[in-house]
Amino acid sequence: MSSFGATAAGGVDREAATADDGRTRRFLADWFDRHGLTTIVDAIGNMYGSVEFVPGAPYVLVGSHLDSQPTAGKYDGAYGVLAAAHAVHHLKEHVERGSLTPQFNLAAVNWFNEEGSRFSPSLMGSGVFIGKFDADEILKVTDRAGISVRDALSDIGFHGIDPAPEAVSYAEIHIEQGPILEKEGLRIGIVTANWAARKYSITVHGEQSHTGATHMALRHDALVGASRIVLAARELTRNFDDGLLLASVGQFDVEPNSPIVVPSKVTMAVDLRSSDPDVLEQAHEMLLAAIDEVTEVNVSIDTSSLRPSTSYQLEGVELAEEAAKDLGLSHRRMLTMAGHDSVNLKDIVPTVMLFVPSVDGISHSEKELTRDEDLLAGVKMLTETVARMVRGDIGAAHPAEFANASHTSS
Amino acid sequence: MSSFGATAAGGVDREAATADDGRTRRFLADWFDRHGLTTIVDAIGNMYGSVEFVPGAPYVLVGSHLDSQPTAGKYDGAYGVLAAAHAVHHLKEHVERGSLTPQFNLAAVNWFNEEGSRFSPSLMGSGVFIGKFDADEILKVTDRAGISVRDALSDIGFHGIDPAPEAVSYAEIHIEQGPILEKEGLRIGIVTANWAARKYSITVHGEQSHTGATHMALRHDALVGASRIVLAARELTRNFDDGLLLASVGQFDVEPNSPIVVPSKVTMAVDLRSSDPDVLEQAHEMLLAAIDEVTEVNVSIDTSSLRPSTSYQLEGVELAEEAAKDLGLSHRRMLTMAGHDSVNLKDIVPTVMLFVPSVDGISHSEKELTRDEDLLAGVKMLTETVARMVRGDIGAAHPAEFANASHTSS
Repeated sequence: MSSFGATAAGGVDREAATADDGRTRRFLADWFDRHGLTTIVDAIGNMYGSVEFVPGAPYVLVGSHLDSQPTAGKYDGAYGVLAAAHAVHHLKEHVERGSLTPQFNLAAVNWFNEEGSRFSPSLMGSGVFIGKFDADEILKVTDRAGISVRDALSDIGFHGIDPAPEAVSYAEIHIEQGPILEKEGLRIGIVTANWAARKYSITVHGEQSHTGATHMALRHDALVGASRIVLAARELTRNFDDGLLLASVGQFDVEPNSPIVVPSKVTMAVDLRSSDPDVLEQAHEMLLAAIDEVTEVNVSIDTSSLRPSTSYQLEGVELAEEAAKDLGLSHRRMLTMAGHDSVNLKDIVPTVMLFVPSVDGISHSEKELTRDEDLLAGVKMLTETVARMVRGDIGAAHPAEFANASHTSS
Repeated sequence: MSSFGATAAGGVDREAATADDGRTRRFLADWFDRHGLTTIVDAIGNMYGSVEFVPGAPYVLVGSHLDSQPTAGKYDGAYGVLAAAHAVHHLKEHVERGSLTPQFNLAAVNWFNEEGSRFSPSLMGSGVFIGKFDADEILKVTDRAGISVRDALSDIGFHGIDPAPEAVSYAEIHIEQGPILEKEGLRIGIVTANWAARKYSITVHGEQSHTGATHMALRHDALVGASRIVLAARELTRNFDDGLLLASVGQFDVEPNSPIVVPSKVTMAVDLRSSDPDVLEQAHEMLLAAIDEVTEVNVSIDTSSLRPSTSYQLEGVELAEEAAKDLGLSHRRMLTMAGHDSVNLKDIVPTVMLFVPSVDGISHSEKELTRDEDLLAGVKMLTETVARMVRGDIGAAHPAEFANASHTSS
């Protein structure tokens, strides 16, 4: 699968609804087909490989995403989709063999545009699924070239017409994207909550002038002002205990960007995350104060959004812990620093989020690596966890409670 | 003329050999035609409006450039070309009337691609004219879209076949692009030398990772490293007396430039200038030391070039001073901080460079402004200066000395 959009450095470039994303999706649809799963594609391009055990019953969904950042690793997202497909196929055989009695139906999912690098925001397909976003509005979103989500999905043949299946619970497995499991020599992470995150779109307004003729005292250099904000964001992290706060600027565009013109404008995306909501709030106040101190230019905070820290349902955490214990896999509870489609799904159904170790904690990089033995242990763990979800260990007591919420997504 | 490539904010966008540059050039060629001047276009797209008074004699050239930065002011370059055209037309009438006895011929010039924003390097047309650049090599240079100078000039109909005229001396008038004349209430600046400049292409190499999942201690953030260099360049200027050093970063490109990816690479163009070559050398050493101190990333200085400070010929400075005195125009000697085509021309012929005041010293900006009375005084000053050059006050004693040099340019 990593041959689709493969990069020279051993990673992948497979942004949402590009030709390479389309090729990867067709590979997955073929795989579903060859393994007796029915491919369903909804209006926002989420694709499901489904099997119906109990006519009319809701679905246990298992998935992740096949899209990637522009230069990314092979594992982020894709591993979770492949693991889900294998788990679903394996459990289908168990049910057919009579060794598993299902209470619900089952589907592997590839959520559309988890990464958000081509079309913003991220977590797009799962956001539409849970009803957080309106599908029609999202289909109008355009990339930098002005191509809409609708046109991009149509171009690769994945603007579907199928209604999305109704969910009763959700499971996802992902590489940790951090060094904790590797450092502690553990196989499996069981996620209890996501880190809180604040994201800002900031514009620094300066005044264009000649680099070779404008006296320093007369300058309003947007790049100098923006650089101060980049370094202020980095400095924030030193105010807290090691590892409590992440702060970054990932996107940064300079205008007019000519060698002999003092920059007039910089637009930038600032990203703060913490496991502790209080730390995040303190960092937020400190960032605003630091921005206030930037002189020579005008700074406007165009958007500032908070993704709060919320918990995964305890019943799912405990189910996964039991499964790991029974399989003899070393494990611990942990938080997720990054966003995942499961952060969306847990708002409507009991959700289990699992991690496997990342070598050196590297991700969103062509150097991303998870060792084969960890990948295989993860598939085993996911399969066992989903087996328990399908037989009704969670989600069973209250399917009706979730029915309304998940219906809004189809 | 400022209607060609006019911007909403009252400036112009007329990069070299674009359609708008072509329109501006056709306007100028028509003007030459209507005023009895012969339009000559050489192979690198320099255009001359010439008049032959003395068959076989070399030419006094008077000019500047019509191309602009992407968002620029109306005056930079264009004023000098219009002033030159008016001066040439006016002096032609004087010669025809018998009130001026010419020793040389005369031509107004629009030099190709002074700005260097679309095609690099800057001062391209005058650089070919003086033989610093090879025309065939320069014609192969491409813009970011891969279009060559040759094709771009052909597309607008200005890849000429005429030999360039032989120069005996050169004059240019330009807005000051600094606040000195305005502050001192003077009409005319007479340039004695150009500032020394150092230009660097720098690449900061970091390591791509996930903004939301990579521990701060594991990061190699190219944007953080590059921001430190931007601020180090700014700090340099505080080590010297006010106005002695200019330091800027105008071009700055971040990769992969996605909101949730720690940047892996930044390429940037650093520009240092000083009136004092020793200050520039000290600043150069300080910049290298500051770059050495940048941690977490690798920094490579891809190119580092020096444009030394060199003098305009004293005979030209004195000629201009006499002209200003005779016209009753207040004036002073000064340096040019920015590059001009005259910096090239002075390497082969006696060259006079004149300035008119810039309001607030603003240039390379849509807010650029020179008041009408200053513009008109400048045309008067240029005309008087060129009249003296045409009658042979400078350049006369040694045309042969320069003949070889200027021949290499045609």
